[in-house]
Amino acid sequence: MLKVGVVGGTGYTGVELLRLLVMHPKIELRYVTSRAETGNRVADLYPNLRGFTELCFSEPAVESLAECDLVFFATPNGTAMKMVPALIEEGVRVIDLAADFRLQDVAVWKQWYGMDHACVDVLAEAIYGLPEINREAIKTARVVANPGCYPTATTLGFLPLIENNLVDDQYLIVDAKSGVSGAGRGASVAALQAESSENFKAYAVDGHRHLPEIKQTLAGIAKHEVGLTFVPHLVPMIRGIETSLYARLPAELTVDLHELYLDRYKDEAFVDVLPEGVMPETRSVKGTNICRISVFRPQQGDTVVVSSVIDNLVKGAAGQAIQNMNIMFEFDEKLGLNQVALLP
Amino acid sequence: MLKVGVVGGTGYTGVELLRLLVMHPKIELRYVTSRAETGNRVADLYPNLRGFTELCFSEPAVESLAECDLVFFATPNGTAMKMVPALIEEGVRVIDLAADFRLQDVAVWKQWYGMDHACVDVLAEAIYGLPEINREAIKTARVVANPGCYPTATTLGFLPLIENNLVDDQYLIVDAKSGVSGAGRGASVAALQAESSENFKAYAVDGHRHLPEIKQTLAGIAKHEVGLTFVPHLVPMIRGIETSLYARLPAELTVDLHELYLDRYKDEAFVDVLPEGVMPETRSVKGTNICRISVFRPQQGDTVVVSSVIDNLVKGAAGQAIQNMNIMFEFDEKLGLNQVALLP
Amino acid sequence: MLKVGVVGGTGYTGVELLRLLVMHPKIELRYVTSRAETGNRVADLYPNLRGFTELCFSEPAVESLAECDLVFFATPNGTAMKMVPALIEEGVRVIDLAADFRLQDVAVWKQWYGMDHACVDVLAEAIYGLPEINREAIKTARVVANPGCYPTATTLGFLPLIENNLVDDQYLIVDAKSGVSGAGRGASVAALQAESSENFKAYAVDGHRHLPEIKQTLAGIAKHEVGLTFVPHLVPMIRGIETSLYARLPAELTVDLHELYLDRYKDEAFVDVLPEGVMPETRSVKGTNICRISVFRPQQGDTVVVSSVIDNLVKGAAGQAIQNMNIMFEFDEKLGLNQVALLP
Amino acid sequence: MLKVGVVGGTGYTGVELLRLLVMHPKIELRYVTSRAETGNRVADLYPNLRGFTELCFSEPAVESLAECDLVFFATPNGTAMKMVPALIEEGVRVIDLAADFRLQDVAVWKQWYGMDHACVDVLAEAIYGLPEINREAIKTARVVANPGCYPTATTLGFLPLIENNLVDDQYLIVDAKSGVSGAGRGASVAALQAESSENFKAYAVDGHRHLPEIKQTLAGIAKHEVGLTFVPHLVPMIRGIETSLYARLPAELTVDLHELYLDRYKDEAFVDVLPEGVMPETRSVKGTNICRISVFRPQQGDTVVVSSVIDNLVKGAAGQAIQNMNIMFEFDEKLGLNQVALLP
Repeated sequence: MLKVGVVGGTGYTGVELLRLLVMHPKIELRYVTSRAETGNRVADLYPNLRGFTELCFSEPAVESLAECDLVFFATPNGTAMKMVPALIEEGVRVIDLAADFRLQDVAVWKQWYGMDHACVDVLAEAIYGLPEINREAIKTARVVANPGCYPTATTLGFLPLIENNLVDDQYLIVDAKSGVSGAGRGASVAALQAESSENFKAYAVDGHRHLPEIKQTLAGIAKHEVGLTFVPHLVPMIRGIETSLYARLPAELTVDLHELYLDRYKDEAFVDVLPEGVMPETRSVKGTNICRISVFRPQQGDTVVVSSVIDNLVKGAAGQAIQNMNIMFEFDEKLGLNQVALLP
Repeated sequence: MLKVGVVGGTGYTGVELLRLLVMHPKIELRYVTSRAETGNRVADLYPNLRGFTELCFSEPAVESLAECDLVFFATPNGTAMKMVPALIEEGVRVIDLAADFRLQDVAVWKQWYGMDHACVDVLAEAIYGLPEINREAIKTARVVANPGCYPTATTLGFLPLIENNLVDDQYLIVDAKSGVSGAGRGASVAALQAESSENFKAYAVDGHRHLPEIKQTLAGIAKHEVGLTFVPHLVPMIRGIETSLYARLPAELTVDLHELYLDRYKDEAFVDVLPEGVMPETRSVKGTNICRISVFRPQQGDTVVVSSVIDNLVKGAAGQAIQNMNIMFEFDEKLGLNQVALLP
Repeated sequence: MLKVGVVGGTGYTGVELLRLLVMHPKIELRYVTSRAETGNRVADLYPNLRGFTELCFSEPAVESLAECDLVFFATPNGTAMKMVPALIEEGVRVIDLAADFRLQDVAVWKQWYGMDHACVDVLAEAIYGLPEINREAIKTARVVANPGCYPTATTLGFLPLIENNLVDDQYLIVDAKSGVSGAGRGASVAALQAESSENFKAYAVDGHRHLPEIKQTLAGIAKHEVGLTFVPHLVPMIRGIETSLYARLPAELTVDLHELYLDRYKDEAFVDVLPEGVMPETRSVKGTNICRISVFRPQQGDTVVVSSVIDNLVKGAAGQAIQNMNIMFEFDEKLGLNQVALLP
Repeated sequence: MLKVGVVGGTGYTGVELLRLLVMHPKIELRYVTSRAETGNRVADLYPNLRGFTELCFSEPAVESLAECDLVFFATPNGTAMKMVPALIEEGVRVIDLAADFRLQDVAVWKQWYGMDHACVDVLAEAIYGLPEINREAIKTARVVANPGCYPTATTLGFLPLIENNLVDDQYLIVDAKSGVSGAGRGASVAALQAESSENFKAYAVDGHRHLPEIKQTLAGIAKHEVGLTFVPHLVPMIRGIETSLYARLPAELTVDLHELYLDRYKDEAFVDVLPEGVMPETRSVKGTNICRISVFRPQQGDTVVVSSVIDNLVKGAAGQAIQNMNIMFEFDEKLGLNQVALLP
């Protein structure tokens, strides 16, 4: 059994990790840490875990976490980078669900996250954990930077177009929508049900932190910088992200776009390209690690539209982390992730 | 024009008061106070008020509030009782939307609110502002204690039964349900949409502060203590309260209950007794000052059930306060309250 | 592998059965029938099943269903009773999720369901499938009547009190609340999101069909008729039932109610009695087969209150059906039902 | 008093018209027609109107409607065009809230609505009722085609850019989102709360009927055909539309976009341009006739983004119809429309 620790188990990505880990047949959950909840039973905070774990929250300490084969960080940005060097020194592998190891350019990191990076050398070896583009590198990585939710949905949506150089990648548009769990479990007026339900709005117009992450990843695929506008919106539902992606096609398009997507993802367990004319719904992936995608050309014009949906807490966070763990430790990639979405 | 001030204008009862006051044809809004927001434009905090008021929040100060004919308190419990004596000294009349002047027994006040009462003499003259039972006294009151939301729905539901001594008032049951705006605008994890939507639960099982208020009011109607169980529940919607009231009927019932209710409320502008067999819906009163009520006997048995609905922020708070103002200053009781609920 | 058929696979209890069956390790799903959808792929109607089944809907026919060891009926009331006699003749065992075999008194059946019963002899042998009271009889039953959702939550809530004769069972009150999936997947104006969300109301005031079912079951436990008022309400959420149960205690109560409940359910895998002072939330059982229960005495008075929650589509329908299947075929009772609720 | 009739009073635009008309001080509501509900009280179908109207639904008949000065059609597409010629013959003026008089090209009409147009000559004189571009023509119109909801939000959002020729109008992108009331009050599985809440998706990918309407209007402003991609999405809330509009700016932009919008709409009572950096929220216009707009350039790049919000049933339907009525009959344009949105 793989010995696993979770640092920062009280937020939404933390509890989602726990939901998946307590049912995973190949792991043993050793530690779930939380400074604020130290000593309290995990299942008292999260009653859905009653009967599934007797663990109590503990202090995050390198000495005890060093017993683990793998440690997940589900902490605020800037926390993991302070503990990871000591852990990998001890031979522990790490998957960070926060942003600490996502941006390779430390100047860009500082610009968007407002702090210096604490371990530039570890950053250099970190692998961006999107299996559909980095599977081989993930297998041997010591540190995996688990992608953000919007970047996951956006990258999987644009990937076949950009790696085949089929669109004008200087004028990409991402109109993204997320459920409210994306704002996290912190107390805030804006995320009260009385404020956010029965409402829809764009937000983060000055720029969202996922913008440089998306641009870095797409640039890596395109082999050059891309131009991209990213506008996130808040949807009055708990879970789910939909991104509507727009790009300009060349005058002469000789590729069948639907076939292109089917072919690109035919061996991917967690990307499901829908039949032509069927639009993906966020509820069809709720609680699951699947990304569902449709690609279409309205009125057979010069614009291609891609709609991709994920559960922001699963393929956009905890589920993708489990997928990365399965790859790193040579388990079946679907182990512990083979679930049917609740419907209705 | 009546000169009006609002102390504590940033919470949900505060903004609801402002929504009604800016459209009221007989008043002039002089001050809206908030320590935290002093100097900021009211319409910047609440964009629904853009175009309706140019006021900025100001510090709460007796000197300026003394210019007003009437001051509303939409403050946390325990605030009004500290300022009210000075204001009434200046000839200002007061409507308190918090609980400070609701409980006449100061020992009970202290037990449930955890503080000594700051102005027992003023408390003694305060009138409980439920117009359907206290209209005459409200007309001349200097201080009106605006009722709580659950007590309003419960009292109006039980009133005809208890004032006619038709049920066993030692074994009353109130199963109450409230939308999440009842929890207020304070940041809290439990009221996040990700927590409270798609969920239903009972709460406050150790006793809710509205219990002694309900018992005091019903005892006043019955002329003796009543026995009552009150269990509140949280409903995943923004506005609305429904109370289902249960009481035991005597073996021989000679009264037509529906006629009794129709007759009791025939002159009340804001209580609407529905036709037999029609259940009230909270949405039919959303944004309005109306309480809709049905009374029925399931299977013609020995139990009477009353279902009453209000908008917790209107008839349960700000609307009832406007109704009290209209009574106190001899305006038409419906002035500024004659609105049609949004549907759907 | 157990060969299983599902008659009526297009409603919400049907798709919930399919969600659980496709993951159950001991069964083979042979047929899913639907007259309206014959020939269409199940996963086209329910995209959450893409990748989990390649089955198409077929016509319901005794000849093919006779190949099965077990057939579930997830059909409208009145359908199963016409096909079941032929199926049990062929040696097929049956679990009916509709009401056809729930009421033993055919006069009561006709009164509430408006039709004559089609197979009174089969009805006589049918077992009411609430494992917590009928586990032994279920093991050998040919026909199991899967309980209704409200009756499941209500019976499990009252059970320890009534079987120990601790309350006045002539004056029981059930204030029940259900999410909108309880209304089924039929097109109706009242269940449109624009109508039912942001709304709360009591309904079925003339009497709900689950009333005679509850009274029959509680009478069986009490060994005499009970008196009971049942008022259901509609909650603006998809899944979940909460029942608040009220009963009068004798003047002298010598039993610790919390201990009583803990003891009664200590061997039940799917009933979880919460610690004192903790109220159950419907979301903590969403998608799972668990019933969570709290029992308390407000202000230590003469009224006991029980709050019980279930997922109406799982412990209130499809999950309980799987639990009954596991018992009938001597599988581990939790097989295929060991899931953690999604939270948030 | 203006004598007014409403044909088709049972849908959501119908009841919203009634909500506004019963409070309008200058009109007298004579007829509300509905074949299906003839003889029933309007307030029995819509309990929010209890106390505001005693009218019963009647059969739609030219003879009685001819008594009116103005008739609103809130009927399915294709109904108004059959009755309007007879009504205007009688001197009645008409505002059609359906699509019958929106598209001037009858071939385009037939392509998108699947029927021949029944009164091409009347169509030719119909005025597209968007006051912000057609106020003068509306004043004297006999027939006003009330705009669709998406076209209203989109046109008001693009208007200043396109009439000043500031963007590449051959590559406009409209990512639009609507609450579920936009689907109407017809019973349908897809609009059940159990289906549409907790879900987000794009729809109508083959082309939405509002596409030709938007293109016609923008072409009229630009004085030439425009190129435009329009993708609507369904938001799990009752009311509200948000459109995010994307267009490419020229390399050298010499105009202050925010000033441009402020200036364009400074005399418009129902268009509110927000301060820079503030995004509009749909809830801030719920129940009101206001369109709130923000314009911004992410990262000061070559793409302009406009976010505009309306209430689809008010500025997107019934409110705009009242605004048109006020213009046609020389009332104050805001009469009966001066309301504060409910918040929260």
